[in-house]
Amino acid sequence: MIDEELALSGERFRAVYRLHGPAAEAEARARAIALEQTVEFPDALLPGTAIRAQVVGRITDIRPIDAERTDVAIDYAVETAGRELTQLLNVLFGNVALQPGVRLVGLTLSPTLAAHYRGPRFGIAGLRARLDVHGRPLLCTALKPMGLSPAALADLAYRLALGGIDLIKDDHGLADQPFCPFDERVRRCAEAVQRAADETGRASLYLPNVTAPAAEIPGRARVAKAVGAGGLLFCPGLVGLDAMRTLADDDDLALLILSHPALLGGLAVGAHAGIAPGLLYGGLGRLAGADAVIFPSYGGRFALTPEQCRDIAGGCAAPWAGLAPAWPVPAGGMTLDRVPELVDFYGRDCILLIGGDLHADDDLGARCRAFRRLVGGGVD
Amino acid sequence: MIDEELALSGERFRAVYRLHGPAAEAEARARAIALEQTVEFPDALLPGTAIRAQVVGRITDIRPIDAERTDVAIDYAVETAGRELTQLLNVLFGNVALQPGVRLVGLTLSPTLAAHYRGPRFGIAGLRARLDVHGRPLLCTALKPMGLSPAALADLAYRLALGGIDLIKDDHGLADQPFCPFDERVRRCAEAVQRAADETGRASLYLPNVTAPAAEIPGRARVAKAVGAGGLLFCPGLVGLDAMRTLADDDDLALLILSHPALLGGLAVGAHAGIAPGLLYGGLGRLAGADAVIFPSYGGRFALTPEQCRDIAGGCAAPWAGLAPAWPVPAGGMTLDRVPELVDFYGRDCILLIGGDLHADDDLGARCRAFRRLVGGGVD
Repeated sequence: MIDEELALSGERFRAVYRLHGPAAEAEARARAIALEQTVEFPDALLPGTAIRAQVVGRITDIRPIDAERTDVAIDYAVETAGRELTQLLNVLFGNVALQPGVRLVGLTLSPTLAAHYRGPRFGIAGLRARLDVHGRPLLCTALKPMGLSPAALADLAYRLALGGIDLIKDDHGLADQPFCPFDERVRRCAEAVQRAADETGRASLYLPNVTAPAAEIPGRARVAKAVGAGGLLFCPGLVGLDAMRTLADDDDLALLILSHPALLGGLAVGAHAGIAPGLLYGGLGRLAGADAVIFPSYGGRFALTPEQCRDIAGGCAAPWAGLAPAWPVPAGGMTLDRVPELVDFYGRDCILLIGGDLHADDDLGARCRAFRRLVGGGVD
Repeated sequence: MIDEELALSGERFRAVYRLHGPAAEAEARARAIALEQTVEFPDALLPGTAIRAQVVGRITDIRPIDAERTDVAIDYAVETAGRELTQLLNVLFGNVALQPGVRLVGLTLSPTLAAHYRGPRFGIAGLRARLDVHGRPLLCTALKPMGLSPAALADLAYRLALGGIDLIKDDHGLADQPFCPFDERVRRCAEAVQRAADETGRASLYLPNVTAPAAEIPGRARVAKAVGAGGLLFCPGLVGLDAMRTLADDDDLALLILSHPALLGGLAVGAHAGIAPGLLYGGLGRLAGADAVIFPSYGGRFALTPEQCRDIAGGCAAPWAGLAPAWPVPAGGMTLDRVPELVDFYGRDCILLIGGDLHADDDLGARCRAFRRLVGGGVD
């Protein structure tokens, strides 16, 4: 059963794990991870020497961060992940995700591996060109609350587009409920946003939520395309990052992908486990084809720190694996009065997502226009 | 935009969240969750009264657990989740997954909702009947280490089947790598396990790993079926629980589903966030069609407590939503010497998964037979 004929390329990609615990234990823990994520087999029992030399992860750096944390870098053979995002995630973090005190904080792809991933189709430059909006953040809002009929949501979409909102997405809670069927909602909302654009001469994009049972995702995306939606909202935490990649890579669709963090963000909540927010949102989301990545900003209803949010924005923008930069979309209870601060923090290449606060008084149009003025984009 | 014509059925399902923090804040936090998971809109701004009355989650219980923890029950209209597992997960935990200090610990389906889910096709009774094994735990092991060729894995599978292992699964790290292509591996291993069965007259099932890029899952499952695999290994954390449900519900496949916790288990790691292990593995896994659910047992390489493992086993077995009981599959560094203790702890209706330790000496067959004797199943 000895496979000495194994002859891998020697090309490796790198994962960095932050270990919480005594520095003296870091090396042994790193060795355990290098086995766990590949052969899942005791080192002493490995048959022959080829697997140990070529398949088992290789520890390439051990670096104390502070008294309680040590970063360990492990290099994995590209062949272990093959050409599959699912298997890349599995090697990176499949089993160690179940261990407290281990946090995935870094990923460096190698050329062969990076070549499997197209990443954002539009990204920052592509979306700016499509909307012909330059030099300011983009404005985004959600169609809600759940419970409105398709006609009511379409009316709302129309007024938001008239008000100058660039991206109008379904709330991520709008699926295919009996009180708001997908087909009718998407058809009405797409038509309403187009009607507003025809009146104003300004483009807005409507992005329906196509998160759905596995077999229904392609059909919903096709409906969205057929009625003229400008992009898709997708929750990779509910359906898998690879399902998002599949949509993003579909040249027949060629639609903008806006990623929503539902459930997925649960992997970023722990201080010492899970996946660092900068990598989860800015890295893996982009790798899976998101042109724009919604995340819970500091100062809202969720719990990320400014430093973590800076990491996310940095992860979206940094040169990485040859992928186009994606838009960071800070969200989760953002309000108009914070727009100047948010622009100052995130810069101009971000999409500001404000939901409920746009409805804080009866004049939705006035609040949309105020939102637009706050980012330096006038509305005639 | 007021939708007073909204007329939901009034039927609701119940989620229970364990809140970590001062009891005095529990009610306000519960109200926030009830909004977050449905309308995601400030209560005061909801249009009209129908949405507040019918769509917003309804707090039905607030129950202190100890000085730091309070359980709150929230009932949601069945229509919010519709007929979709993806949307059910979204309503249950989509956005609050991003909040520390909130743990999903309970789910009670209502009749209409439960009717959408078939759950385990085989479950405990069906698999016992298929293998004609009664009154003892089943034995399971994994084909590994990664790096072996399809021929070497098939040879291993043959010897494991001869040794009396009931279920022989791919290691979850075996995907479609260049050194071990899916089609060749699955064909060879299925053939090897069948050959052993023909010799011994005892059935063993081979379960290939069909976790794959979204569009390739159905094709791999069809290959597995065509070559005679007895079931499928699947990692819902990598591809989504609904992709597992899709496989489980496929009447043309009609294959046993064994769920692996890669990545998914990251949602159960935090003490005060994520999803309680009993619900994640024993509940949601079963709802998504798993006949058997692998989880990291206490006393292995991972970190669950005996109490949490008892909850998982209980979750697999308890009458719930009209679903058949599923097999708990304690794993993650189990060893032969612990089999009596594990049988004592988990009872006879469990599947014991032992990987590396079966290879701890050179006589694989002898260790398989020892494993079998330890559960009270002789091998001729």
